[in-house]
Amino acid sequence: MALDAMLQKVNALTGFTNAAGVEVVSAESGRAQLSVAKKPELLQFNGFFHGGVVSGLADHAAGAAATTALPPGKIAVTVGLHVNFLAPANGPSLLASARTLQAGSTLCVVAVEVTTPGRDGPVLCAVATVTLRVVDMPSLPA
Amino acid sequence: MALDAMLQKVNALTGFTNAAGVEVVSAESGRAQLSVAKKPELLQFNGFFHGGVVSGLADHAAGAAATTALPPGKIAVTVGLHVNFLAPANGPSLLASARTLQAGSTLCVVAVEVTTPGRDGPVLCAVATVTLRVVDMPSLPA
Amino acid sequence: MALDAMLQKVNALTGFTNAAGVEVVSAESGRAQLSVAKKPELLQFNGFFHGGVVSGLADHAAGAAATTALPPGKIAVTVGLHVNFLAPANGPSLLASARTLQAGSTLCVVAVEVTTPGRDGPVLCAVATVTLRVVDMPSLPA
Amino acid sequence: MALDAMLQKVNALTGFTNAAGVEVVSAESGRAQLSVAKKPELLQFNGFFHGGVVSGLADHAAGAAATTALPPGKIAVTVGLHVNFLAPANGPSLLASARTLQAGSTLCVVAVEVTTPGRDGPVLCAVATVTLRVVDMPSLPA
Repeated sequence: MALDAMLQKVNALTGFTNAAGVEVVSAESGRAQLSVAKKPELLQFNGFFHGGVVSGLADHAAGAAATTALPPGKIAVTVGLHVNFLAPANGPSLLASARTLQAGSTLCVVAVEVTTPGRDGPVLCAVATVTLRVVDMPSLPA
Repeated sequence: MALDAMLQKVNALTGFTNAAGVEVVSAESGRAQLSVAKKPELLQFNGFFHGGVVSGLADHAAGAAATTALPPGKIAVTVGLHVNFLAPANGPSLLASARTLQAGSTLCVVAVEVTTPGRDGPVLCAVATVTLRVVDMPSLPA
Repeated sequence: MALDAMLQKVNALTGFTNAAGVEVVSAESGRAQLSVAKKPELLQFNGFFHGGVVSGLADHAAGAAATTALPPGKIAVTVGLHVNFLAPANGPSLLASARTLQAGSTLCVVAVEVTTPGRDGPVLCAVATVTLRVVDMPSLPA
Repeated sequence: MALDAMLQKVNALTGFTNAAGVEVVSAESGRAQLSVAKKPELLQFNGFFHGGVVSGLADHAAGAAATTALPPGKIAVTVGLHVNFLAPANGPSLLASARTLQAGSTLCVVAVEVTTPGRDGPVLCAVATVTLRVVDMPSLPA
């Protein structure tokens, strides 16, 4: 199965990303980009994207990026997530761009940048470093 | 306004926690407990709570705990979030218990434990350390 | 070899902790306490313990705590270190108290508190969460 | 005082970096590179650089990078340090390259890469994200 198709399938099976409307923008070995558009159930009381949504998108993008760097039949699951919030996530959407720094046989480490469209172009609203463990991929429903 | 009432009001105004069904279990100066019950839009493809939900609940509980420790008119907003996932979040609900370690005039640091009910009692499925900045509380709608 | 003896041996073989004068205060399964006394080469320009020393002591205490929780022949090596600095490390010594939260076959997670003596008792100057990988213990010189 | 001269002065006044032999390799607004050469008191029992040294060098480089991005009279002090160790720090020296992601009036966030020379060029042995608070610079001895 091609990387895009596999990521989209996992995405569709995942209640959280499916309900949030997360989309796979691009995927290649060791890298993935996911986006999500603004809607009320993703927001803080001030109307910005909630930190949990920023974190969840970064986490999911990291899992996608690391998994594409692994041999077939392996998947990367998050064991540690570190996020720094740099600017209000106050645009109409979020884009998480994940880049694998290390894809070992036991552990992966992925760096993620999350941007939101601003008046003068994308604004870097968060950076994350995600640590993942390599496990056997469970079989997915057909 | 009493702490519980204030936290519940903020919660209700917040799309993310409102849609997720997050509830305030307890609140006192420097501490807060929030819970959320399982539903499809909060899950990973394997049926466990998604890491973004665990992280978002921990983040929100930390904000509640820190804010209760601040003088009236101040609120704590997350600038850094660190989560270690220790066990599958595979029970029927999550409980985040947040305890303020530091409540300064500029920064707060809060430790959070997230548990899920297991066969033999609560299972510690994640720990988080959250760094927050103290800002003026925006006025809430009546 | 008893836990104390093993930790003291590793300590003595380690240039960093040996030069710094790190001492094993206590050790039991899953827990360890290490201390270090003030001396010029451990300090920031303001005379407080340097963040690298606080971090290094926390890291080393975490390794000791996790290793004592593992089966014989295994050792835990740090893969991720997260530290929050809460108060100036300005006392005459530092004490790192490490408690293992998870000791799996692949990964361990350890929480560490670092205190320094203050006028009214120990002051919590840093908290750390350390992620470690389990590997085979290398043979030590006799 | 020029940036290089200021960083070198702070470095020389700091017991930890002075004893370790930390050198300022380069400095410009928002960026700094520091290096340190191998010596016994910086090592793990296996002969690699100790995690505390890697962390301390990253921390110090972050402080230097952030401070160069601030207005005169301000200095950045670390409040949070997150390090992922990616490969053994087993070369003859370490180089920490720090890049400021955010330099606000209250907080700074700096990304650091630490490399060690390997057979085929520099090996990325650790990445760090450092959160710093902006404070008034204390006066330095002449």
